[in-house]
Amino acid sequence: MRGFNIGLFGFGTVGQGVYDILKDLNYSKLGTIQKICVKDPVKSRKISKENFVYNKEEILLDEKIDVIIETIDDPEEAFKIVKTALDHKKHVITANKKMLAYHLKELTNIAKTQGVAFLYEASSCGSIPIIRLLDNFYTIDELLYVGGIFNGTTNYILHKIDEENLIFQTALKQAQEKGFAESDPTNDIEGLDSLYKLIIITYHAYGIMLDVKKVPLLGISTLNDIDIKFAKKHHLKIRLVAYSGIKNNQYVAFVLPIFVNKNSPLYHTEYEYNAVVLESRYSSQQFLKGKGAGSYPTASSIIADLQSIANNYKYRNHKESTVNIGTIDFDKDIKFVVYLRKNVLSDNILINWEKRYVLDNQEFGIANVNLKELKKITEEIRKSNGFIALWNDPWNRKNTHLENHIEQVKEVNQIEI
Amino acid sequence: MRGFNIGLFGFGTVGQGVYDILKDLNYSKLGTIQKICVKDPVKSRKISKENFVYNKEEILLDEKIDVIIETIDDPEEAFKIVKTALDHKKHVITANKKMLAYHLKELTNIAKTQGVAFLYEASSCGSIPIIRLLDNFYTIDELLYVGGIFNGTTNYILHKIDEENLIFQTALKQAQEKGFAESDPTNDIEGLDSLYKLIIITYHAYGIMLDVKKVPLLGISTLNDIDIKFAKKHHLKIRLVAYSGIKNNQYVAFVLPIFVNKNSPLYHTEYEYNAVVLESRYSSQQFLKGKGAGSYPTASSIIADLQSIANNYKYRNHKESTVNIGTIDFDKDIKFVVYLRKNVLSDNILINWEKRYVLDNQEFGIANVNLKELKKITEEIRKSNGFIALWNDPWNRKNTHLENHIEQVKEVNQIEI
Repeated sequence: MRGFNIGLFGFGTVGQGVYDILKDLNYSKLGTIQKICVKDPVKSRKISKENFVYNKEEILLDEKIDVIIETIDDPEEAFKIVKTALDHKKHVITANKKMLAYHLKELTNIAKTQGVAFLYEASSCGSIPIIRLLDNFYTIDELLYVGGIFNGTTNYILHKIDEENLIFQTALKQAQEKGFAESDPTNDIEGLDSLYKLIIITYHAYGIMLDVKKVPLLGISTLNDIDIKFAKKHHLKIRLVAYSGIKNNQYVAFVLPIFVNKNSPLYHTEYEYNAVVLESRYSSQQFLKGKGAGSYPTASSIIADLQSIANNYKYRNHKESTVNIGTIDFDKDIKFVVYLRKNVLSDNILINWEKRYVLDNQEFGIANVNLKELKKITEEIRKSNGFIALWNDPWNRKNTHLENHIEQVKEVNQIEI
Repeated sequence: MRGFNIGLFGFGTVGQGVYDILKDLNYSKLGTIQKICVKDPVKSRKISKENFVYNKEEILLDEKIDVIIETIDDPEEAFKIVKTALDHKKHVITANKKMLAYHLKELTNIAKTQGVAFLYEASSCGSIPIIRLLDNFYTIDELLYVGGIFNGTTNYILHKIDEENLIFQTALKQAQEKGFAESDPTNDIEGLDSLYKLIIITYHAYGIMLDVKKVPLLGISTLNDIDIKFAKKHHLKIRLVAYSGIKNNQYVAFVLPIFVNKNSPLYHTEYEYNAVVLESRYSSQQFLKGKGAGSYPTASSIIADLQSIANNYKYRNHKESTVNIGTIDFDKDIKFVVYLRKNVLSDNILINWEKRYVLDNQEFGIANVNLKELKKITEEIRKSNGFIALWNDPWNRKNTHLENHIEQVKEVNQIEI
């Protein structure tokens, strides 16, 4: 193994984590950070000025640098950096999930043509090596589904709501104070961050690039007291779940809140942890849990990628040309049972209620929705501050315990709320 | 990718699983089973006689056959088959954990000299790709520990004892009827099966071969009513855990029962599931759960290995020459807090009780033991039908909840049992 000459972009939480680990004696033989490119020349930083450059070409056009580690926030700028680096035959490691969700396929093709490694384990579920496993272990396997809790911020909020009986706003504020949520938490709480990761993971699981705009999506920003009490009443917890897989012989994908009971591994995924559940035709269900964010957990995934480049590893993208799972539209006739709450006055959508309650101006309860309508319904619901959560666990094909809950609901004429 | 010519040894649960999966259209391009070697020429089997041979040389000396898949029970015979196959430059996949626990290093060296692949993911924790992850992802990482529930049979028994208030013997009988336990369950319930897997996993995690005879070991065969009630009284479950890692800056390994509370991921590892917990210096804790046995889950790991051979993958054994974790003896001054039960009359060992109760002729409670004495104590305890279980979760470095339990125990003068 030789040591790489590394160009690092960004010196935030993740960039500093990478810097720290590579200073550690056990890891320093992997390579040396030659230059760090940052935006702001004035900002005070914990290491001296000589380490930094402010013009990306100083790294990208430096022929001595053979590996680029990209950890900046701005997805457009990240795309330019990664593309230029690949064009100059440099190996690239990136953690930018939004950039990947839009440009993954294009960049993969460039990397292949150029014969360099393009790795991004840190982009999805932090320290959980899910991309590696999909690319390496579940290779020709026919995956039934892959999904889970892909966002630590929302999980921390949902955990606190459940554990300490907080309302959404208080839990969000606590998460921000603890550094788990950004000052602008939109990407997290609206489910976009989970969706970006789902797109990356789906590319490795099924060889398809989902369209950000087409996947049914609802976050937890509209979660209110009625929803929380409804969950507690039924001894359930709420989790935000991303799912990609086969249901009723058709491919479906979504990011939606879900009600889980104590038999689900997601029920026990607490604080800012991430979880991945997957099953292949023959492997039976697998469950993985780990820290989804944080300086060192994320940076350790980047370092593992660096080690892999030293071993001449490149993603194989086995699935790309081999899997045929039909057309990837979301216009299919697949029934979902959901918990739903909406304003009685918002009548842009017709709800097929299984059991309906009314309190103040809110109607809520158990309803049937079809995948065809799901995208439209989630959008309408969000506009009117309503809420939807899957009532059935998508990877528990028996769903027995949750069906019991529906029976319970049917029997009760009025629930106390 | 070309299709391999495969020689299969054994046609039991796992061998038949491999046969079935390779008949599946999606997987058949990986290769074709040319011959299956079995012991008994008379036994009736689900496929016709032409598939079988009864003399191992018919496969091992066949130059057309390039991959051997070994799934037989007998470890001595398995060793001979694997060694001969490697000597003849054939790639080898094996699931034989006992054989590996004794011969892993020697066979690895032969495979390296011969330049062939020698893979055995199916030997450890069935469908959980732990060897792959240690070899590929946690490569140069400094692992703090790796361990977990490595045996599905004992976990099924412990789950049933807890869930249905069974006694050990009834739960064992049920496990045998369900096919989870062998007619001779000694290897499982005495912890040997877990130990074999621990040795294989430790080789990949730390580059060292543990000696079967030296690792402190106790299974669950002596578990009795007092132990079960003591666990229930404190809202704890009993699990059989294998552990390899650093404690108090020293390397330790053991297979022991443990008391876990509801905050432990092992508490929620039920039925015949296996679980792996590991943490590297920077990655934070990772948890993996999956089926540890069964025809298809085990065979799917073998098929993943076969796919890897097609990709020219060989284990890298990074850790072998690089890790220095001191001498691997178990003669160290490391304190463990344990639950312990012994016959009052068996006084070959002096117990340092923290809290002691007596009922009939059994004394039990919380005690301190030193790693130095642990091997001797487990042996004495087993001889006299006593029981030991770790009172502290070895990978929860804070141990706060379990310390609370000790406080509780101290406060109670007499527990009802």
